[in-house]
Amino acid sequence: MEIVLDAVEKGALSVVGKRVPRVDGAEKATGQAIYVDDISLPKMLYGKVLRSPLAHARIKNVDVSRALCLPGVKVAISAQDLPDTCYGPFIFDTPVLARGKVLYVGDAVAAVAAVDEATALEALALIDVEYEELPPVFDTDFAMDPEAPLVHENQEAYIKTFQAVQKGNICSHTTFIEGDVEAAFNQSDYVYEDSFTTQMVQQTPIETNGTVADYDISGRLTIWTCTQAPHLMQIRICDGLHIPINKIRVVGLRTGGGFGGKVEPKTQIIAAALAQRAGKPVKLVLTRKEEFTVTSPRHSSKITVKTGVSKEGKILARTVKAVFDTGAYADDGPGITGFGGMMSLGPYKIPSYRIDGYCVYTNKMGAGAFRGFGNPQCAFATESHMDMVAERIGIDPVEFRLKNVLQNGDLSVGGIPMPSVGVKECLEKTAKAAGWGKFLGKNRGMGVACLQHISGVLSSSAIVRIHGDGTATVFTGAIDIGQGSDTTLSQIAAEELGLPMEAMSIVAADTASTPYNWAVTASRITRTNGNAVRLAAADAKRQILELAARFLEVSSEELEIVEGQITVKGSPERAMKMHDIGGISHWATRGPIIGSASVMVEGHKYDPEKVIGFPFGTMAGFVFGSHIVEVEVDEATGRVQVVNAVAAHDVGKAVNPTGVEGQIQGGLVQGLGYALFEEIIYDEKGKVINDTMLDYKIPTALDAPNITPLIVEETDPGGPFGAKGVGEPTLVGTAPAIANAVKKATGVRIMDLPLNMEKLWREMKKR
Amino acid sequence: MEIVLDAVEKGALSVVGKRVPRVDGAEKATGQAIYVDDISLPKMLYGKVLRSPLAHARIKNVDVSRALCLPGVKVAISAQDLPDTCYGPFIFDTPVLARGKVLYVGDAVAAVAAVDEATALEALALIDVEYEELPPVFDTDFAMDPEAPLVHENQEAYIKTFQAVQKGNICSHTTFIEGDVEAAFNQSDYVYEDSFTTQMVQQTPIETNGTVADYDISGRLTIWTCTQAPHLMQIRICDGLHIPINKIRVVGLRTGGGFGGKVEPKTQIIAAALAQRAGKPVKLVLTRKEEFTVTSPRHSSKITVKTGVSKEGKILARTVKAVFDTGAYADDGPGITGFGGMMSLGPYKIPSYRIDGYCVYTNKMGAGAFRGFGNPQCAFATESHMDMVAERIGIDPVEFRLKNVLQNGDLSVGGIPMPSVGVKECLEKTAKAAGWGKFLGKNRGMGVACLQHISGVLSSSAIVRIHGDGTATVFTGAIDIGQGSDTTLSQIAAEELGLPMEAMSIVAADTASTPYNWAVTASRITRTNGNAVRLAAADAKRQILELAARFLEVSSEELEIVEGQITVKGSPERAMKMHDIGGISHWATRGPIIGSASVMVEGHKYDPEKVIGFPFGTMAGFVFGSHIVEVEVDEATGRVQVVNAVAAHDVGKAVNPTGVEGQIQGGLVQGLGYALFEEIIYDEKGKVINDTMLDYKIPTALDAPNITPLIVEETDPGGPFGAKGVGEPTLVGTAPAIANAVKKATGVRIMDLPLNMEKLWREMKKR
Repeated sequence: MEIVLDAVEKGALSVVGKRVPRVDGAEKATGQAIYVDDISLPKMLYGKVLRSPLAHARIKNVDVSRALCLPGVKVAISAQDLPDTCYGPFIFDTPVLARGKVLYVGDAVAAVAAVDEATALEALALIDVEYEELPPVFDTDFAMDPEAPLVHENQEAYIKTFQAVQKGNICSHTTFIEGDVEAAFNQSDYVYEDSFTTQMVQQTPIETNGTVADYDISGRLTIWTCTQAPHLMQIRICDGLHIPINKIRVVGLRTGGGFGGKVEPKTQIIAAALAQRAGKPVKLVLTRKEEFTVTSPRHSSKITVKTGVSKEGKILARTVKAVFDTGAYADDGPGITGFGGMMSLGPYKIPSYRIDGYCVYTNKMGAGAFRGFGNPQCAFATESHMDMVAERIGIDPVEFRLKNVLQNGDLSVGGIPMPSVGVKECLEKTAKAAGWGKFLGKNRGMGVACLQHISGVLSSSAIVRIHGDGTATVFTGAIDIGQGSDTTLSQIAAEELGLPMEAMSIVAADTASTPYNWAVTASRITRTNGNAVRLAAADAKRQILELAARFLEVSSEELEIVEGQITVKGSPERAMKMHDIGGISHWATRGPIIGSASVMVEGHKYDPEKVIGFPFGTMAGFVFGSHIVEVEVDEATGRVQVVNAVAAHDVGKAVNPTGVEGQIQGGLVQGLGYALFEEIIYDEKGKVINDTMLDYKIPTALDAPNITPLIVEETDPGGPFGAKGVGEPTLVGTAPAIANAVKKATGVRIMDLPLNMEKLWREMKKR
Repeated sequence: MEIVLDAVEKGALSVVGKRVPRVDGAEKATGQAIYVDDISLPKMLYGKVLRSPLAHARIKNVDVSRALCLPGVKVAISAQDLPDTCYGPFIFDTPVLARGKVLYVGDAVAAVAAVDEATALEALALIDVEYEELPPVFDTDFAMDPEAPLVHENQEAYIKTFQAVQKGNICSHTTFIEGDVEAAFNQSDYVYEDSFTTQMVQQTPIETNGTVADYDISGRLTIWTCTQAPHLMQIRICDGLHIPINKIRVVGLRTGGGFGGKVEPKTQIIAAALAQRAGKPVKLVLTRKEEFTVTSPRHSSKITVKTGVSKEGKILARTVKAVFDTGAYADDGPGITGFGGMMSLGPYKIPSYRIDGYCVYTNKMGAGAFRGFGNPQCAFATESHMDMVAERIGIDPVEFRLKNVLQNGDLSVGGIPMPSVGVKECLEKTAKAAGWGKFLGKNRGMGVACLQHISGVLSSSAIVRIHGDGTATVFTGAIDIGQGSDTTLSQIAAEELGLPMEAMSIVAADTASTPYNWAVTASRITRTNGNAVRLAAADAKRQILELAARFLEVSSEELEIVEGQITVKGSPERAMKMHDIGGISHWATRGPIIGSASVMVEGHKYDPEKVIGFPFGTMAGFVFGSHIVEVEVDEATGRVQVVNAVAAHDVGKAVNPTGVEGQIQGGLVQGLGYALFEEIIYDEKGKVINDTMLDYKIPTALDAPNITPLIVEETDPGGPFGAKGVGEPTLVGTAPAIANAVKKATGVRIMDLPLNMEKLWREMKKR
């Protein structure tokens, strides 16, 4: 059905754009919100996972029989008890429990369910596993060597959801090509090449991953879990255990932090497999050590950027080689490597380029999606490099960027037109607010970074129901993981329906209640689910107006809804209340009003000659931002204090400005940890040595600078009321801006993250 | 949107009409199903209700302060703590807690919530209530006397949802008029008048009414309850506590028997009011004594029938006066009285009639809906009367009925055409199967009764979602209270979608998951929700075929779905799997497929000159049946044993024949209890004296006769695949058939239910 949306004039909005209190605020502030560890079911068992002590070994035998003899142990399983299948988002390379080989220290080998945690832990010690140790691969340079041991021995046989270019331990190689790059370098007045590395960092959500699973006598599985993607989880469980989707219910609970690490399964499938055998509910919650050592961290990377510029400061050509360490399992690695590579052009118009992204298996835990999806690594490299180029050719970094920024209508990688490009305004606003160029004093420096990102991919759907009293409920598969989607999606529906926020409620994230949404990821909820919700509300509104038209004796086109009153345009005295329409539809005429909509971001298809091995065939909207930070460096210790930070983000339309500002603040501080001190460190046997919150520091309020969040609204014609996303990009610009500021403050250029005290102190000492 | 349903040839169905196992069977058989008393939430409190010891009294004061001082008591409330409002289905005459007066022994006066049940009970004893006793009214004859005390002193001021004719204690007076009745009586060769009475009987579900309520910091109320009507419950709570519907979630759990008594609130609003104040969950489950004394029993009645017949045995005229005792609150009484009166024509063509139904307040517990909704009372009277008339004019009772039965196209009360009338076939089939007319021996007799009923009123909606793997889920507001709707609605969707039953799942009865359904009542689910589900499935199917048409390069009209394969009609080799369509819609093209539909049974409007004061403006489909029972009477004791029973019901199309047979068996046995021994007995102060399962007997397996259920399928053009309902009518024919059989066996005609041992023995002795 074709639904025609009313055009909305700027300023004509009554709910969208307002600073609305969070609909989930009170329950969270008072501790009433229910998280997975709050769930306790009668006869519930506790699950634990036996994990590999070796980085790479053949499993010769797993014997759970001694564990099963321990009183209180109800289930003990290994791969041989499960379907001979693997799952994964791009490459089906991940078994539920290790089959044939273990691929990293922490790989799941067996699992038990027992009456309490202590018994479950005791049972793990009774599982006998015979290993034959194999030489491990920890480094991507070594892994890419044809002589290196293979992490996956038959990856060619895996099911893949994209045309991967694979070789040895390279699980994907993505290439983007535009123009004659060699010729462009030859025409350039200057050509510079710099190499960078970034570290592995962990997700560190406040709440570790966890699940309660229950499997009933009728073959129906219920999963209560912290997740970013209840509907995606159904698919993975279906792939992993061969249970049809209609028999799987995933209830997405309140989720204590999800930055990408709660998209793919961590505990859900194992808990389901245990519950399936137990016939009782099973709770499986990761310990903090497990959260550090077996969940999907940000990929470490090695990135080389080469840029050709004219003497006027115009960028003419760029090559990027980015190698991402995806660890033992591909997970989102192929997508992340490709997308990171794509973003490594930055928000600049670069006529000729060649980008190569390599995603490489090693014997470490499988890396995955993490706020920014490859962009933070590449932006650190390219935005550091931008400053290095500007310095070499003697142009101010802001001025250099302004000379090259994208504008409305420019094309992105693969020839995609970008109708809404707010990067110039972001950069100008941040420079002005930060006082770019002002005198800062000794040991102080100011650094800038710009960024692009995407917003909105794949499909979502929504249902909007009008109740008998004229109030309304939105049904969405999108889960509010703290980002505020329950509030913004309610606002979008309220705006479209002409209802006040009080008349709205929202049901989210339970697959038995809500229509499909792919996942809360890719900064896509406001834009993609927002579109689905707006269209579903418009579908309901059409039905409301058609019904009201019968009673007000006009055509439905002559009607509008303002604050819950349906009125004849221009004759406000001819009106009906939504309450009356609710009653009439339920009790007297056509039956209840249900609006629904499904959307798919079809985007633009790439030219396959220019985009090779990229797992996404299409791409959605683009978002932009600019970060400027001011740092003070302690000469004696190398300690960097970020004093002030200004961040501007182009969000198309800020549906809830308070929420946008919260995203900017949160992303910026999380990026600060990435820039300055976070790092997962492995020993030589492939074991993580800093697997506690004491040994692995994340920023706290004491580390946070004064933050000035700035909102830029370059209307996105493809977004609801012009809106686009903001979840991920807020992190992306922070690390390069800090590195650039530290260079200004100290003269030292750090090209390897993290930019920690020791590293900076040593470099300063060298000078 | 106009959805064109495929016409279905008889015999062309692959899921509808098959004996499908119940989808809720395994969980119930194994005890896994969750009922309200299985719910236990952290910090849950226990609610108890203080009830009036007097039948009629003014409340001078209620003081809960001493109760609140008892340690462990968290909340104690009376009417003064609640909104000054009443609720009800037809007349808003019911306060949440008694306000101003108590109207029966058991009326709710105050309520408490405490940390355990013992403390809550102790607290009740500490609530001080001052009453001023008023003269009670226990009998409808007295109640209708203008001099009688008024149960409701200002009922004229109540909100009413229909144009009631009210006077004194008469809360509704409904009249149906057709033809010149006096003239028709004058033309009749014989005119006979008989009077009957029926007793009050209780619902006696295995599970007593109960609720767990929780009210969160954000003002959202959640109700877990046994109910026949989650969405209706939202409305009543909204009316009673002024909470908007979008803030109320009602989760209909597995329900241990609902025969009408779990439609209107029993515990839900009081539990909600307690939880609202406690800020903690509150469980309120009725004791069996409460279930007997304060929930809505079947109305007792006094019915006088007068029939004029020609000497050929054609019925020419009838008058009926039916007086129903609705007790302290109207509840569904106006509807029941009117509907019962309407049904008192029986399934016969009667050219002239006048029917008067009076619904009368007394100081007993409020009577309400109970399987048959007034029809069992009126059918007992009129079908007993039919036999009495047949005997007087010397015609065989089956022959007399066959001379008068309705046929396709005849009009029902109020001039409604009935396109699908299977009563003749039902009667003939039962007569044949029972061996009507055969020699039975001493003390044995065979009795017959025919019946009509309705099927399907008001509105319902449904959603059908197709998953990424091609399986599907039906979302319906209809709750499976044991009648099998989860199974039949799944079958209807499977049939329309061309999927096997294994590919289906169903989500039902949670208002936060499912679209609106009025209630599980009026034998309406198969027909009304079945229509909504079929249309929603057809909406999904249209989208599936449109999508498949793109890939199979044909028009969608050329496609069909057979066993989960989408094929080009006539070219089965050109096919796609539903699995592929699921994947393509979710991942690559148009977004997920959601089908939805709302239906309203608009029926036919009555002529308001001929139908006066009837609370339903329209009526839906009609169903028919015939019961023949064979009894053996013990001369010495008067004990009646029903030996054999044959019951034929016209269900249009038996979606699940096993389910239909189960309904026939269950309804017949429940009707047997009504006929022979069930009766609520009051003492002279208005107190129920048989309020336990020991003192109030219901039939068990030992009382059940051999039952031969027969299915008649007179296609209903308004039902899904021709189906209509069967829930209620299966009870209706039993009592008159037994009374008629007992007359044959003993020569004694019992005109006052129950036909118990003592009554029959006394009458036999008299002869």
